[in-house]
Formats: sequence, structure tokens, C-alpha cells
Amino acid sequence: MDEIRRIIDRIEPPERDAMLAARRRQDELTKPQGSLGFLEEISIKVAGIKRNAIPDPFENKVVITMAGDHGVVEDGVSAYPKEVTPQMVYNFLDGGAAINVLARHIGARVVVVDMGVAASLEPYPALVDKKIGFGTRNMAKGPAMTREEAIESIKAGIEVFESELERGVDIVALGDMGIGNTTPSSAIAAVMTGKPVSEVTGRGTGVDDEGLSRKIEAIERAISVNKPDPSDPIDILSKVGGFEIGGIAGAMLAAASNRVPVVVDGFISGAGALIAAGLAPQVKEYMFAGHISVERGHRAVLEWLGLRPILDLNLRLGEGTGAVLAIGIIEAACKILREMRTFEEAGVSKKE
Amino acid sequence: MDEIRRIIDRIEPPERDAMLAARRRQDELTKPQGSLGFLEEISIKVAGIKRNAIPDPFENKVVITMAGDHGVVEDGVSAYPKEVTPQMVYNFLDGGAAINVLARHIGARVVVVDMGVAASLEPYPALVDKKIGFGTRNMAKGPAMTREEAIESIKAGIEVFESELERGVDIVALGDMGIGNTTPSSAIAAVMTGKPVSEVTGRGTGVDDEGLSRKIEAIERAISVNKPDPSDPIDILSKVGGFEIGGIAGAMLAAASNRVPVVVDGFISGAGALIAAGLAPQVKEYMFAGHISVERGHRAVLEWLGLRPILDLNLRLGEGTGAVLAIGIIEAACKILREMRTFEEAGVSKKE
Repeated sequence: MDEIRRIIDRIEPPERDAMLAARRRQDELTKPQGSLGFLEEISIKVAGIKRNAIPDPFENKVVITMAGDHGVVEDGVSAYPKEVTPQMVYNFLDGGAAINVLARHIGARVVVVDMGVAASLEPYPALVDKKIGFGTRNMAKGPAMTREEAIESIKAGIEVFESELERGVDIVALGDMGIGNTTPSSAIAAVMTGKPVSEVTGRGTGVDDEGLSRKIEAIERAISVNKPDPSDPIDILSKVGGFEIGGIAGAMLAAASNRVPVVVDGFISGAGALIAAGLAPQVKEYMFAGHISVERGHRAVLEWLGLRPILDLNLRLGEGTGAVLAIGIIEAACKILREMRTFEEAGVSKKE
Repeated sequence: MDEIRRIIDRIEPPERDAMLAARRRQDELTKPQGSLGFLEEISIKVAGIKRNAIPDPFENKVVITMAGDHGVVEDGVSAYPKEVTPQMVYNFLDGGAAINVLARHIGARVVVVDMGVAASLEPYPALVDKKIGFGTRNMAKGPAMTREEAIESIKAGIEVFESELERGVDIVALGDMGIGNTTPSSAIAAVMTGKPVSEVTGRGTGVDDEGLSRKIEAIERAISVNKPDPSDPIDILSKVGGFEIGGIAGAMLAAASNRVPVVVDGFISGAGALIAAGLAPQVKEYMFAGHISVERGHRAVLEWLGLRPILDLNLRLGEGTGAVLAIGIIEAACKILREMRTFEEAGVSKKE
């Protein structure tokens, strides 16, 4: 825990002066005050995070997609077989998945991490190997992982981020891949938000009514068997979480401690954000909600985090797809601050 | 009217076969069916418009920003003086306005058109001169323009689009600039949607309560004095419209007749879309709503047009800003169709 504690202690609040200066500048730009709405708020938040009223252009946009498998799939909680997890990892590495297309669109690099895929993956130069185990154990029967493994998964996420930071990271999106991983995410959401399981459990990749009942039942069993302590995020992660969720939480903490804006993707990324914010509430000041997913429960997660989603496109794919699209919007918001002229510079009359 | 009629007659329905093929392809790509939500729908609509199941990459993205002035500002309906219209036109031409920043962000070119600014503008190579008059007349006292001028403004919009088409246009956004132009837009929205003026009239660039009352009163007076015929869009445009609104409508019709997707921006662009769709309902099949503005009345306009907004960022600036940001999303949606691999290509197992 020492390494995680060290990172958390380094997370400072965003700089108020930079935010005030960014606000003043937004009010001086050639547009009615406030007329760029949420874009203005986004740019001011980035200014605070980066301690710079006019944030530098984003040269290094990064999406980290964390992959892991889940023992609970044996209970029939997913519409897809677990072989899909490694198959999709190869698809990411070959550039053929949605996250690759959208990352290319906004000029981001994709970092694929094996946090705990239940298969031995062929080595790829671009694959980061942080495998904690060959999938978690079935949380409906006992803890998904040990407490040590939960800590290891968060530390692995920190290491992944810090190693990427050496290559440059101006903004980071966190995505996921893992057949069955909406199930632990719903369990985490239920424990942390206090909502009933049925209110934070959806169809994931598309289970039918029967599959949804099985899923809710498995989550309720997992919570009653393991009794995760709502005040102890590591306990929650170990008992009803996933390796990739721990990795996402760790990378988010490391980003915040390095003053890098964090873009939360969908429901699984949101579950990672819950763990991160449970450990260090100040990390929320570094977070943007890329989008609101159609996955039931995502809204409750974003409300708990106090984040307004940037996009609402009925996405439910994960991988970091919604977050990456939102990076394009966040970048645009910051360019407004940097590139627009003020009333004075442009010789435009102000409000009467 | 012959020229306008000729354009309208050329607007064909989107191609069903291309849309079906795009739908099939979306279902074969390596993601759960439907998991990219609205992005999938957007890509399929573009496929139909372009008669191509896998639309070609957008090489020429264009935003046309139409400027005009409004006689009704003498009644105190705007928070800004009318000198701001030409000042902002120069700001566009110098690249310092929000639309320039956002257009650069997505790689679009900005076309600025003087449709009826109430000042003689210095010639700029990039300024398209289609001035119909030095601002409209005060619609609260009589028709804003003659029927001939209304037709001229639509024809001018057609000409602007067709001339841009020679340079290449794969997708077009229509924006506006004109102090006071939410006032005619609200009048058009009230007449065409049948809603009470107070329900479709907002604060524009930011009038106070008193200004809002004056604005509603001016619009109600304009409608009672002029009695625009709800079934005759040219009559509405001439009596309570604006030159830039006519230009926007004309460019939209020309884009549709050339199978180019049209991105509607905020409230004024939406008023232009109402006029275009009133003249040729099939033009709606070519339209995307870039965003939902905070300007009261925009939702009613989008509902009448049957369009779902792509973005919801509390914007109320106009110029084409929201539409241009949405082009980035539409482009991403089309790249999904073109660049993602299918289950077969990637060797990924399908749903069980």
C-alpha cells in the first residue's frame, strides 16, 4: 500500500489562480459571456489541472485500454464467450477495433494492457504485460482476488501510467476490455453508491431477460458471500472487482498525481473511477466524464463522482471509445482559450 | 422561383440499399450489435445520403457562416450593438473567432458570406459578397424584406454552395452571424411550429428580463402586422426573416440536391432549416442536428425537423460552432464503417 499511498499524497488540488485567470480570459474572448457553455467550464477545469490559464496544446493524447477476465462468467452473466477477451486484445494490437479507429481520428495512441486475461497472450511489442492472474475467481463463490492482488493491480496501473508518462501524456482516457466485466462493475457501483443491485445492473454486451436475472442474482450472491466493506475500496476491489478495474483505478491516481486530466469512459471505467475516488476523493477534480453510457447504473456512478458527461451518444462498447471522442471536445475547448481573440485584440464592441 | 424549384426537384430520397448495406456492415464489425448507438445511426444516414455503404473519407469539410443585419434591433431586442456584425465578420476573416478555432480543430474551411450586413465591408479575398441589402427593415413595422429579396437570398445561398462545391464539399455546416437574429428566428419558429412566441423566444446573446419582454412583444407585433402565411415559407422569410436565414436555407437545399450531408447549427441555422424543410420536406433526410442550443425554442425546431441533436454542450454562440464540432463526431462515425474490422476479418467469436 505504501506505493499507492505515496501517489495519493502527491495529488494536489487544481490551481485556483489558473482557473480564475482562465475564467477571466473566457469572458474577454469575442463571444457573449458564457455562450460556449460547457466548453468554457471544461477549459477552466483543464487550466486548473495543468496550473496554466492557457493550457499548452495536447501533443500526446493517450488511451490506455486495460484487459482482464472474470471467473463469474461461468455463471452465464455475459452474452459472449470469454475467448473474446484475448481475441479483442489481438484486434486492438492489429488496429482493427473501434478504439483504434477513434483514437486515430483524434490522434491518440492506444496502449493495450494485459491486466489478467485468462489466456497466455503472444508477445506483441505494443502489448504491456501486467498480468496479475488468468482471470479473477468467481466472485459469486468467494473473493474475486486476494487483497494483495487488488493492491498489485492498482500498482500495475500506476506503473503503466508512469511508463507512458516518459513518452509524454497530456491527457489520458481509460478504457477496458473483458468479457463479463459489467458484472463486477455493477457490484462495485452497488456497494459504493448504496443503490440496490437491480438499479445498477444492465445488459452489458446484450444479455436477454434471463441472462439479466442470472447476472443480478450472481452480483447479489457475490455481495452477500463476500460482504465487501463499503468504506474500504481495496476490500471492494478484491472481493467483487477485476484486475483491469484495479489497473484503471491505479492509472487514474497516477495521472492525477502528475497533473494530467483523466477521461472516464463508460461503466467499467466508471467503476475504476469509483475505486480511485474512494481511495482519494480529490482525484475527482482531475476527472472528466467522457460520455453517459446506456448501461444501466452509469448515471448513478457519474452522479456519485459529481461529473457531467460530455457526450450522450447511446454508446455501450467500452474500450475507451466514448472517452476518446470526448478528448476531441476537451481539446477543442482548450484551443478556444488559446486561439480565440479577445474583444480588444479584435476591435469588437462589447455588450451595451 | 424557377431556380429554387429546379434545385428542389433534384433532391432525391437517400438510397435505401446503401443504408441497408451499411446496417449489415455495422452488425458485422467487432463489437456487440448496436453498441455504438447513435454513431451507427449517423453512419447509416450518411451512407444513404452518399449512396455508398462505406462513405469515402471527408476530404473537404466546410462551414458556411452567413452574416446579416436586422432592422428590428432598433426596438432594443439585442444585448449588443449592430456594429458587432461587421466587426465579427472581420474577426472571422482574420481567423480569431470561435468558428475559426473549431473549424481548424476539425480541419474544415470557413466560408464567410455577407448576405446583408448593414455596413459596406472592405473587400477580403475570403469574403463572399452576396449582399441583398444593408440589413432588413424592422419587421415589427412591416415586412422585413420584399418577396423578391427573400427569393434572392435563397438563390444566393444556392450559389454560394454551388461555388464551394467546385472546390469540393463532402459535408457542410451552416452557421450565422447577425446581431438581433434570434428575433426573426423565433418569429419563424413560432409561425412554422405553431407554438406561442413566448415558448420559442429566448435571451439570444443575453438580454435581461426587460429586453426579453421587448423582444417577445416585437415578435408578436411583427406577426400580427405582417400575417405571414404558415404554409408559404417564402412569405414567412420575407415578412419576419432575415437575409442570412434565407441564405442558410438556400445552401441547405443546394447541398441536399448534391447529396451532401447538411449539419444544422443552433437556433438561427435551425430557422433556416425550417424554411428549407418547409419548401422541400425531403431535405430533412439530409440534415443532422449538430447540437441542442440553450436558446429557448431550439428544441421545438429540432422536434419539428425530426432531428436528434448530436451534442448537448449548452452552447448559444451560433457561427456554426456546434455544427462544426458535430462534424468531428459524424466523421468518426463514418470512419467506424470504413476502418473497423469485421468478426470474420479479425477472427473474433460472435455472440453465443
